[in-house]
Amino acid sequence: MTRFAVPRGMRDLWPEDWAKMAWMSERIMGVLIGYGFKPVEPSKIELLETLEAKSGPSIRDEIYWFEDKAGRALGLRFDLTVGLARMVAGRPDLPLPAKFCAISDMWRYDEPQFARYRHFWQWDAEIFGSERVEADAEAISAGVDVLRAVGIGNFEVRISDRKLAEGFLRAIGIGDPARLGGAMRALDKRGKLSRSEFLGELRSIGLGGDQVEKVLEFVSIRAPIEEGLSEARGLGLKGEMAEEGLRELEGLADALKGFGIGREAVLDLGVVRGLDYYDGIVFEAYDRGGEDIGAIFGGGRYDGLCGAYGRDIPGTGLAGGIERMMLSLERSSLFPRLRSGPLVFVASANDAVRVEAIRMAQRLRALGIPAEFDLKGRSLRGQMEYASSSGIPYALIIGPKELGKGVVRLRDLGARSEEELRVEDCLKKLSDLAGSFARYR
Amino acid sequence: MTRFAVPRGMRDLWPEDWAKMAWMSERIMGVLIGYGFKPVEPSKIELLETLEAKSGPSIRDEIYWFEDKAGRALGLRFDLTVGLARMVAGRPDLPLPAKFCAISDMWRYDEPQFARYRHFWQWDAEIFGSERVEADAEAISAGVDVLRAVGIGNFEVRISDRKLAEGFLRAIGIGDPARLGGAMRALDKRGKLSRSEFLGELRSIGLGGDQVEKVLEFVSIRAPIEEGLSEARGLGLKGEMAEEGLRELEGLADALKGFGIGREAVLDLGVVRGLDYYDGIVFEAYDRGGEDIGAIFGGGRYDGLCGAYGRDIPGTGLAGGIERMMLSLERSSLFPRLRSGPLVFVASANDAVRVEAIRMAQRLRALGIPAEFDLKGRSLRGQMEYASSSGIPYALIIGPKELGKGVVRLRDLGARSEEELRVEDCLKKLSDLAGSFARYR
Repeated sequence: MTRFAVPRGMRDLWPEDWAKMAWMSERIMGVLIGYGFKPVEPSKIELLETLEAKSGPSIRDEIYWFEDKAGRALGLRFDLTVGLARMVAGRPDLPLPAKFCAISDMWRYDEPQFARYRHFWQWDAEIFGSERVEADAEAISAGVDVLRAVGIGNFEVRISDRKLAEGFLRAIGIGDPARLGGAMRALDKRGKLSRSEFLGELRSIGLGGDQVEKVLEFVSIRAPIEEGLSEARGLGLKGEMAEEGLRELEGLADALKGFGIGREAVLDLGVVRGLDYYDGIVFEAYDRGGEDIGAIFGGGRYDGLCGAYGRDIPGTGLAGGIERMMLSLERSSLFPRLRSGPLVFVASANDAVRVEAIRMAQRLRALGIPAEFDLKGRSLRGQMEYASSSGIPYALIIGPKELGKGVVRLRDLGARSEEELRVEDCLKKLSDLAGSFARYR
Repeated sequence: MTRFAVPRGMRDLWPEDWAKMAWMSERIMGVLIGYGFKPVEPSKIELLETLEAKSGPSIRDEIYWFEDKAGRALGLRFDLTVGLARMVAGRPDLPLPAKFCAISDMWRYDEPQFARYRHFWQWDAEIFGSERVEADAEAISAGVDVLRAVGIGNFEVRISDRKLAEGFLRAIGIGDPARLGGAMRALDKRGKLSRSEFLGELRSIGLGGDQVEKVLEFVSIRAPIEEGLSEARGLGLKGEMAEEGLRELEGLADALKGFGIGREAVLDLGVVRGLDYYDGIVFEAYDRGGEDIGAIFGGGRYDGLCGAYGRDIPGTGLAGGIERMMLSLERSSLFPRLRSGPLVFVASANDAVRVEAIRMAQRLRALGIPAEFDLKGRSLRGQMEYASSSGIPYALIIGPKELGKGVVRLRDLGARSEEELRVEDCLKKLSDLAGSFARYR
């Protein structure tokens, strides 16, 4: 750590990671645009009251906020959903449903930990203006296709419904807001707790032995969605709220079949999602090979969120962490070979032909072939060393003798082989090579 | 303005502007990668002392900064150059020259005005580790090719040298730091001042009549670079510093010829660039059709900047504002037609075929054809109204009768024409249409 390190929890993206992010973004955006989501970019800085509108003032402890020079309280956004909901609520002229997506960055003042930064990137897709389960199913299907598009094939989407969870807790006598909130939070972090920690958590909020038993039975349900729904029906859940949650999930299971989603969809009654704007169907996807990474995307329904910004519009959507996805792809070696720099170094054999090297680099660039030339006045040997150490695969060498004959030497710096080619043939060969390389975007 | 507006000087990007930014970014990045720049993303939040290291504590007045919950003073970056210099200075293992680029966003606490926001985007390319004028020429050439790649053809790059300007001012007796700084600032904002305001500015920092005359003569030089250099020689500038500036500019003029840059390169001794890390060649490009937009890119040499981060490495580079470029392209109608939403709306004639509409949308999406279906349970007529008002060009109508015959109806919503097609023929036709549309990226 030097004096000029990046702040804690922040980082720089170097070319290799940048190329991976660009590759993922292109694939993700391709899927989302295919689903009819239109890309947008909400403001990254919001009025603090916009960020607090749904989450309450406690959000201040979890985000970056400050007063600007005019005394306005501003905050760095902590997700994309809030900004999108604010945008849509402010535009009564928009035809509904309105489907927007974004791939962008945000900040949270968390303790940095494995796969979590204070500055991070998410892809996000939201459907505003549809109360139907087809919209929830479409959000889940978009997520599934995003994972497939980047090559993640072994995953499951764990689905539940906040109404079902809340209705169940009320039905077993956990009705007052503090205990209800505590029980929902306990469910939410269950995945990170041992069984005895989870039990301790439930008891600490005042649940009796019988209630704890029932909660354990409830959260033990995790099965492919249609089987899971029969099991849930078997619990004999009472009350209108739990019933409505079950009906929504049954409708969702039907709609998912239309989307071609099968056993990837799992009913998991322990899923509640932490963010407090969800109020219906909720879901989280996990890479089966890397559960420790956490949910690889998550989302749900937030019919009450837009109302906080002045217009009552139902909403549902999902978001996934780019850093987590990168980790998942790296573990499974799913990234293609991504070129991270120029294809050709144009070397000059002596000072007399330096300007010819510039001209040749410009010709190559005009053909779409990424090229560099010597910017240090180095000897030919020094130029070759630089090109090799920079990982540039080919060197095109211009010499005074060759120049007169209309030829150049092309050296393969990996294979350490060299050939003499007519200029036109060399350009043709490099064009073909450039086309066969994986591109950044 | 509602209660939940975006903060002053900030904005949301809606699909149309997002598509324009994506189109520009793709073109710009293509040029920069061709020049051998590797894309990176420096941290967006820096320690305040990193931002102050070269610009001094006065930068606090122009940026967003705050203390985090642990009492660290942090600032939102105001450009990309500082972060890139910090990154390179911290990596002694990097082969030099190292060429990096970025297209990303930053913040300044300016008064919002025409074509200026408090949150804005720039493209940026920097060459670290070369002290040679070929590097400055390459930066200028990259900028020229960026403008050409987005279709801006009528521009000029106004070039000068900070050593020449400072050497000249010293030679006419403006040597003490306060007056020197004042005179440089006056030169920098000259373009925004009337002649009498400029004269007033020069007098207010204590220049005598003779000195003012000489400054006016100096800044009056603006001509294609080789002519301009003869004129500058004719001024009889004295002193080693001015001499060095002139020699650098002469070397640059030669190198630019190698890059194929001709009369676009203009010597303009009034150019100094405001940011205080420049210390050699400086330049600014202007769209000749829109000087009021301001410089469309600018840059220069900053051999002292990396030293402020602990490692002495020469540097040169350039950056351009994305919002300004967008404005310039809009004025000249240079954007292609960018599709901003799905190509097809899959309509269901009645409730019995709703699930078939979902299946068809999924088939279209799998073929790369952006598609939507009804998420509101609307009648066929209601679906058509939604599709039209959303600007979706085609509707594919699924009816129970047609389904049995293996056909669908395809309606051109613009032309208000409709035909019945076999499913396979319809998919083929829509595939072709999707390919012929301009794409986001």
